[in-house]
Amino acid sequence: MRPSGRKTDQMRAVSFERNVSKHAEGSCLVKFGDTHVLCTASLEDKTPPWLRNSGKGWVTAEYGMLPRATGERMKREAASGKQSGRTQEIQRLIGRSLRAVVDLGALGERQISIDCDVIQADGGTRTAAITGAWIALHDCLKWMEARSMVKVEKVLKDHIAAVSCGIFANQPVIDLDYLEDSAAETDANFVMTGAGGIVEIQGTAEGKPFSQDEFLTLLGLARNGIDELVSMQKTAIG
Amino acid sequence: MRPSGRKTDQMRAVSFERNVSKHAEGSCLVKFGDTHVLCTASLEDKTPPWLRNSGKGWVTAEYGMLPRATGERMKREAASGKQSGRTQEIQRLIGRSLRAVVDLGALGERQISIDCDVIQADGGTRTAAITGAWIALHDCLKWMEARSMVKVEKVLKDHIAAVSCGIFANQPVIDLDYLEDSAAETDANFVMTGAGGIVEIQGTAEGKPFSQDEFLTLLGLARNGIDELVSMQKTAIG
Amino acid sequence: MRPSGRKTDQMRAVSFERNVSKHAEGSCLVKFGDTHVLCTASLEDKTPPWLRNSGKGWVTAEYGMLPRATGERMKREAASGKQSGRTQEIQRLIGRSLRAVVDLGALGERQISIDCDVIQADGGTRTAAITGAWIALHDCLKWMEARSMVKVEKVLKDHIAAVSCGIFANQPVIDLDYLEDSAAETDANFVMTGAGGIVEIQGTAEGKPFSQDEFLTLLGLARNGIDELVSMQKTAIG
Amino acid sequence: MRPSGRKTDQMRAVSFERNVSKHAEGSCLVKFGDTHVLCTASLEDKTPPWLRNSGKGWVTAEYGMLPRATGERMKREAASGKQSGRTQEIQRLIGRSLRAVVDLGALGERQISIDCDVIQADGGTRTAAITGAWIALHDCLKWMEARSMVKVEKVLKDHIAAVSCGIFANQPVIDLDYLEDSAAETDANFVMTGAGGIVEIQGTAEGKPFSQDEFLTLLGLARNGIDELVSMQKTAIG
Amino acid sequence: MRPSGRKTDQMRAVSFERNVSKHAEGSCLVKFGDTHVLCTASLEDKTPPWLRNSGKGWVTAEYGMLPRATGERMKREAASGKQSGRTQEIQRLIGRSLRAVVDLGALGERQISIDCDVIQADGGTRTAAITGAWIALHDCLKWMEARSMVKVEKVLKDHIAAVSCGIFANQPVIDLDYLEDSAAETDANFVMTGAGGIVEIQGTAEGKPFSQDEFLTLLGLARNGIDELVSMQKTAIG
Amino acid sequence: MRPSGRKTDQMRAVSFERNVSKHAEGSCLVKFGDTHVLCTASLEDKTPPWLRNSGKGWVTAEYGMLPRATGERMKREAASGKQSGRTQEIQRLIGRSLRAVVDLGALGERQISIDCDVIQADGGTRTAAITGAWIALHDCLKWMEARSMVKVEKVLKDHIAAVSCGIFANQPVIDLDYLEDSAAETDANFVMTGAGGIVEIQGTAEGKPFSQDEFLTLLGLARNGIDELVSMQKTAIG
Repeated sequence: MRPSGRKTDQMRAVSFERNVSKHAEGSCLVKFGDTHVLCTASLEDKTPPWLRNSGKGWVTAEYGMLPRATGERMKREAASGKQSGRTQEIQRLIGRSLRAVVDLGALGERQISIDCDVIQADGGTRTAAITGAWIALHDCLKWMEARSMVKVEKVLKDHIAAVSCGIFANQPVIDLDYLEDSAAETDANFVMTGAGGIVEIQGTAEGKPFSQDEFLTLLGLARNGIDELVSMQKTAIG
Repeated sequence: MRPSGRKTDQMRAVSFERNVSKHAEGSCLVKFGDTHVLCTASLEDKTPPWLRNSGKGWVTAEYGMLPRATGERMKREAASGKQSGRTQEIQRLIGRSLRAVVDLGALGERQISIDCDVIQADGGTRTAAITGAWIALHDCLKWMEARSMVKVEKVLKDHIAAVSCGIFANQPVIDLDYLEDSAAETDANFVMTGAGGIVEIQGTAEGKPFSQDEFLTLLGLARNGIDELVSMQKTAIG
Repeated sequence: MRPSGRKTDQMRAVSFERNVSKHAEGSCLVKFGDTHVLCTASLEDKTPPWLRNSGKGWVTAEYGMLPRATGERMKREAASGKQSGRTQEIQRLIGRSLRAVVDLGALGERQISIDCDVIQADGGTRTAAITGAWIALHDCLKWMEARSMVKVEKVLKDHIAAVSCGIFANQPVIDLDYLEDSAAETDANFVMTGAGGIVEIQGTAEGKPFSQDEFLTLLGLARNGIDELVSMQKTAIG
Repeated sequence: MRPSGRKTDQMRAVSFERNVSKHAEGSCLVKFGDTHVLCTASLEDKTPPWLRNSGKGWVTAEYGMLPRATGERMKREAASGKQSGRTQEIQRLIGRSLRAVVDLGALGERQISIDCDVIQADGGTRTAAITGAWIALHDCLKWMEARSMVKVEKVLKDHIAAVSCGIFANQPVIDLDYLEDSAAETDANFVMTGAGGIVEIQGTAEGKPFSQDEFLTLLGLARNGIDELVSMQKTAIG
Repeated sequence: MRPSGRKTDQMRAVSFERNVSKHAEGSCLVKFGDTHVLCTASLEDKTPPWLRNSGKGWVTAEYGMLPRATGERMKREAASGKQSGRTQEIQRLIGRSLRAVVDLGALGERQISIDCDVIQADGGTRTAAITGAWIALHDCLKWMEARSMVKVEKVLKDHIAAVSCGIFANQPVIDLDYLEDSAAETDANFVMTGAGGIVEIQGTAEGKPFSQDEFLTLLGLARNGIDELVSMQKTAIG
Repeated sequence: MRPSGRKTDQMRAVSFERNVSKHAEGSCLVKFGDTHVLCTASLEDKTPPWLRNSGKGWVTAEYGMLPRATGERMKREAASGKQSGRTQEIQRLIGRSLRAVVDLGALGERQISIDCDVIQADGGTRTAAITGAWIALHDCLKWMEARSMVKVEKVLKDHIAAVSCGIFANQPVIDLDYLEDSAAETDANFVMTGAGGIVEIQGTAEGKPFSQDEFLTLLGLARNGIDELVSMQKTAIG
């Protein structure tokens, strides 16, 4: 039924490879099937201007795709001189999602920048990015803890993971790949904490509008998927 | 309880003033309380490059705020040389929402550009913009119908309206004004059709994560509010 | 003779609507016939870098047009990434004109930014903008006076108003609308004070060069028109 | 009285050096005292898009200053990524002034671009640029005439020259140098044809407003100066 | 002597991983020690404008670094809105180097874009990029050959590889890593063909000028290193 | 043999005109035949941010071409909104070359900016620029010495001059003009000190790769040419 042969509630093979960067304080190569995102966490010893002398720090994110991460080569954003609306939308989402589980006061007047660069894309890059970014952020905080800068459990209050769900061929399915994503009638992204709290919901009717019941089915699929992702994050950092 | 004294399920005073532009094919000044958005619809007799020779047209939207629409003057985007991520996110949302009820084939190879310019802001500019943009779009299609270019009912399949809901002071409330919006724990925007179909859902935890039940309460509030907005649209164009 | 049926020395209906913005310290919606410009004055409690520690303040202006203020939709400057030469020329003119009647020392180390946004255009947007901007500036200073920050009569030395004149169909006429403006052989903008002093003159031959006598006729027309505008300003703030 | 010791109606030493560029179809290094502007005319065998198939050509101008043309080094506009408002204002003025004496139909569907680059600045760069640009334009047309493309006298209907006048130390003076320009109360630029027709007038009160009589005195000074400049142009091309 | 303990004529461990991209027509992850560059080749079925109807194709390259490829996070070029001079210099070099061994006529009217993205940097990113880009280009041509579009040996006339050499601690050494690069007195990059022809030489004195003899020593080191790299390329594609 | 009739080892007529700018602390109009570059040195009493409190100063360079310096008019970089990769490459080269002979500590916390603007181009603009820039830099230091700010011989350790060599029609030749440059098989730029030390070598095969012997022949030609240029610099400042 699904192009990949997956069951409707079956996510792609997910993996986290930690410490993939020689330089970054935390890093993770996350794979959701053929979607590969390199997430690095960079610690800077200053907070943004609007937080100076507030005692608080900041966590921010940037997102990019390599030009040939996709089936057709896209124009390099650095060459075209600006980031697309889509890019900005995604990096704002990643930053917001991470900050939902961070105690910025416990972080202190520092900034952690998470770069999520899509090495290869096959649908669901933003949800993979959020899920992997959490690992990179965690490892950056571990690095800081090793230097007595913070206590990880004070700063990082919970897990964050994300998954997309959608209605494809009249079936609610989880973790859409590119083939599904480009044909889905409805596409929704869910970001939740380890405790099951909802942090972000973004649902869009691509074709005909969707009903509340359909939406609740997607939310249910997402909840199970995110539970699974959080378990895998726990194993990865265990 | 609410700064404005409104009840939790009470929207602000909403009004639509049509034909406010001497030049535009359709126009509407929409007010949600102190949030005032001028929506104009401009017909262009060509479709974007990627639709040429497809027989299909396009509906797109641009969004802007006058620099002193807000409590503190913001930098003029034309002067700073780029549109913010927030601006791009909103104009993409408006365009998507309108296209959800437009039959692009019935429109023919033409483009309608909806400009939503916030004259004065007091929270909820994007939802007011979508709701008013539908009127401007409708009136543009009427203008075209009067010239035998299209049949309105063939192109415009349904109403579209939008409203924000959120959790303010632990209470689910509808149609947040700026004071509520800046203090809300959860903020969600809903876009629905006249038939009650959901077109867009965007929910964000600003503070602590929200639960499924809280979200369903917000969705219920939104459904009632959007029903009301659609009635008012019907009266306005009646 | 004139497309509008006006006499050669007859301006369009002019009106000033004050306090149109909930947020701005001063605001005015000025109408010269179908040309409508929203002028807001924003007080900032710092002066530009080059005036720091000089004891002097600054008055500056920005100008913009909504994309569909005109007969054909224009590209949004924020989207195209820069302000046109015409926009910059006009906003420099507005700022210079206002500063000609302001005692920057009496203002103190503050900046007042006047935003002139053309809601609807039908010729003469820059002269309407200057004339309305003076009201917004005046009201901002009144706001400051009410808070004991300045004395209005110390800062604002005189009125400023502006009008265009031109040679249309071989006739010198005042306050050209778009139809006249686009067909005029000569087009001139005059900015004068309440006392009749000249602050700016900009005359351009669009077709054949003009003579000194023709120019003096235009100047005479402008003088009368500006006297009238200043009277109307006095009534408006009275 | 004047810093340079000149009489009030005395222009600086003016010279035109033709054919200073190996490549350009027409070129002129114009000097008004220490203000030196290199003007080149470049013929392109196509007209701008909006004139295609109109049978008409176009004359346009661009203006720039070398970074150290001035007393203090200015930021290079190419490096800062945009042309200032002042630059755009001046290049629009130069283009308009030249087009006032050109029969665009007689030019045919071609474009002549005049580049005016200020090698050294000492006040009055725009008026020197216009006066020198006319020579470059003339020589470009001569080059075309030699190739039987146009008849110079059909295309170029008259001379164009420009000079600044101002009120310095309460005295009306002509052709202000930098010292005078930066201290003048009133500053006006005049562009006229060989026949004495006025093409552009730009007068600005830098300090207190000026009167009609003062303005007429400046206009009289300008008229004499421009007569002189036109004579010198005639000698130069003679 | 060298921070890495390598001998003066010893390159770092070099490896080529082919087919690392699901989408690109050719791809290679090249590693020179801790310098890792992902090279993808993208075939487009059109040639740049200046080659249209010439029968010739084009090979071009773009270069980028992930923000945290380096010891300190660098600003993302897409966010800062332009590519640095260094980036442009390097991508021009890569493109030129590859074109030196390509018969553009045999390629036909197509363009191959090579993207070289530095995943991790430790000195020598441009030389690694050139060496890996050749593999990606080769594999793209193989892909085309499999579709009967070209003959590889007609298009690709030879190998291209590159290495840096420099004088570090008064010793000529090959393949400088970051520690050496930042302390080297002289730094030179060499690009050569499989047949030993020189395609590019770039030598720069960072501290004191260098002599012809020193330069010839570096050239000798480079020649041996490039011979080795070409052998490794042959093995990789063998 | 050569289009200009020059011998293979014969440079074009070279001249240096000093003090060509009324404003700059040092200036030189350098001519290599029909290539004319205006070099100005501007002293600023502050060092770049990264050198603050280091006791060191900085020498930097910017490069530009007037739009009609070339056979066909090029787009003005200030109008197109960015400097090309070629421009940035050249100005980085000029700055690096000059700094190779400057003791930045002896300069003190000041910056000297060298602007090299090509008034007319006929090949070899970068080498002419470097050679002339040295004169402008020298004269700026002399200006400073006259004000007891520095000792020239402490800051400026040696001469710097540059020349291009290439293989044209199978012959190694020096100082290529445009006709030769655009047809050369190999093109190399050499920057050397008065003492004969090499500061920069940039060699590029435009057509077929070159051999080490060919390269050494070019280097020999360059050495003689640069000796000559240094002698001429000595005469010029003598």
